[in-house]
Amino acid sequence: MRVNGIHYKTVWMEGSSVFLIEQNKLPFSFEIYEAKTCADTCNAITTMQVRGAGAIGCTAAFAMAQGFSEAPEIGFLDAVNRAKAKIEATRPTAQNLFYATNFVYGQAMAASNPREEAVKAANQVLAKDTRDSRQIGQFGASLIQDGWNVATHCNAGWLAFSDFGTALSPVYIARDQGKKLFVYADETRPRSQGGRLTAWELRHEGIPHAIIPDNATAALMAAGKIDMMFVGADRIAANGDVANKIGTLEKAICAQQFDVPFYVAAPTSTFDLSCASGTDIPIEIRHQDEVHYVSGPDADGILRRIRITAPGSDAYNPAFDVTPARFITGIITEIGILKTHEIVEKIGDLHERI
Amino acid sequence: MRVNGIHYKTVWMEGSSVFLIEQNKLPFSFEIYEAKTCADTCNAITTMQVRGAGAIGCTAAFAMAQGFSEAPEIGFLDAVNRAKAKIEATRPTAQNLFYATNFVYGQAMAASNPREEAVKAANQVLAKDTRDSRQIGQFGASLIQDGWNVATHCNAGWLAFSDFGTALSPVYIARDQGKKLFVYADETRPRSQGGRLTAWELRHEGIPHAIIPDNATAALMAAGKIDMMFVGADRIAANGDVANKIGTLEKAICAQQFDVPFYVAAPTSTFDLSCASGTDIPIEIRHQDEVHYVSGPDADGILRRIRITAPGSDAYNPAFDVTPARFITGIITEIGILKTHEIVEKIGDLHERI
Repeated sequence: MRVNGIHYKTVWMEGSSVFLIEQNKLPFSFEIYEAKTCADTCNAITTMQVRGAGAIGCTAAFAMAQGFSEAPEIGFLDAVNRAKAKIEATRPTAQNLFYATNFVYGQAMAASNPREEAVKAANQVLAKDTRDSRQIGQFGASLIQDGWNVATHCNAGWLAFSDFGTALSPVYIARDQGKKLFVYADETRPRSQGGRLTAWELRHEGIPHAIIPDNATAALMAAGKIDMMFVGADRIAANGDVANKIGTLEKAICAQQFDVPFYVAAPTSTFDLSCASGTDIPIEIRHQDEVHYVSGPDADGILRRIRITAPGSDAYNPAFDVTPARFITGIITEIGILKTHEIVEKIGDLHERI
Repeated sequence: MRVNGIHYKTVWMEGSSVFLIEQNKLPFSFEIYEAKTCADTCNAITTMQVRGAGAIGCTAAFAMAQGFSEAPEIGFLDAVNRAKAKIEATRPTAQNLFYATNFVYGQAMAASNPREEAVKAANQVLAKDTRDSRQIGQFGASLIQDGWNVATHCNAGWLAFSDFGTALSPVYIARDQGKKLFVYADETRPRSQGGRLTAWELRHEGIPHAIIPDNATAALMAAGKIDMMFVGADRIAANGDVANKIGTLEKAICAQQFDVPFYVAAPTSTFDLSCASGTDIPIEIRHQDEVHYVSGPDADGILRRIRITAPGSDAYNPAFDVTPARFITGIITEIGILKTHEIVEKIGDLHERI
């Protein structure tokens, strides 16, 4: 997608270096980070310079390619295995990361020229991520009518993948189809991915939009100002329950109340059929300081970290919630728009083939 | 209520000065502002050093007493009328303010010693505000069971009135009755009255509590962690629809979904029977900068104002929403807990008597 009119992917490889958009600096500064070694790339994942399931997967694939490239002839296999273990320890709950390292490892080890094959396989991971995101966008765009207002929560845009994204991909494709639309981006406290990343993406893509406080979504739905809502997903259970950024549940409940279609957009790799329902999905409780402190530039452009809550009070900070399937209109994947009852059949078959 | 163990009201009068808790400095600094003249007190209302319907009413009453006290013998009536007009121009949408100025004016003008009578009448406004808030707390506390977790939105605590408050008054009274309870305070973006003022009040009163992001309320309800919810009200229509801080609607919808009792606490002066339903209540759209910028101390304790959203993006900032009566379990007033269908009869009679 575009930044200042120039086309970018979230991450890419040139020579032996991995380049990635430094997401910790966004939206106040746009910088490209060059990770010259596998260790640099691992560090970029750990420090969240890159975030989002798809983007982490692609970055891990390129790190694996660096691992192959850096391994000496003597002790090659040991070095590659150490690199793989190091990459897989960066963000141990990211499902896509393991898929990416295993795919690159398997392809490279089966080839006569593992170093070259690893780079090729990593680029295949990237290409599949982009292709799937684009396909999700095309299925999703078919649901958007010209002139509609679309709401979204958190950031499941192209920054979270290699390109297009999931929840925002239908918006980008619909725009390319000539449809006029307006996006309401939930701020998404406490980390404000909506107000910071989604708004930044939309502005650079020239999509008319407004940031809204998380508290305002229902009021806008009640006023008829939201025609549909798209969100991403962190994990989807066999029965269609969806774990996603905290606040997704509130939005889904309100959407049903006001007859606003509520779609989840995610690649099929997000389904975890080992979870029968949402109650099987563990929910991460994050540090309370994410609620108490925020960062951003002051009037002089100097980045400051300040406290915005009453000193001495505790905060409770669950990072995700589970939205029961009954509140979800449909799940947009790269193989089509699924209804809850189709998941086990369609995704089960697919996962078995992989 | 208590601050650092000492009992305070939000506003009071000593000699010819009005003293008030400087709410713009909270929660990072506790300061008492002395308004020596009627003009000083008017300025304190305009600059929101005092906020909240009840607290504004009491402050306006004391400003009126200052207006009487400052008026010279020659041209007394003109001076008093000018003072009254000036006070009423400070926050023209605050219903309680007009009640307070008119009450003090009427009592004083009917007396042989208007200056002394004005001070007496202003203290009566304060006493009635405290009495009504305490009564709301006693009706509300009867709904709270020992060991319950109570959620609240925004700040309708004692800082918004002279003492006790409305939505928090049941919590304080239940605590005094020996009930153990825990309060979840919604942060209440964009102005964060929950994370700043409600949390500050609760900490000084020693009530166990946690600030939660506005996005987390439904997740906590789904997990069975919230037993009931109390909110305040800015205006209540004849059919029981309630205008209150943005986000109240979302919370009420989610509460109904999870069978969490959802109560509005407000004095009878909050009812506006000239509004048949919530659609007659105008909703203020505030400046988008309230969403983009936040203030607070950095690590060195220096207050900073920083941007927390993507530069160049717009925000949309409705200050209030309207919760339809069907989502509200009951309305706790100083005359009892009302059901929707009782409003016109019970409040209509009461307003006629005034």
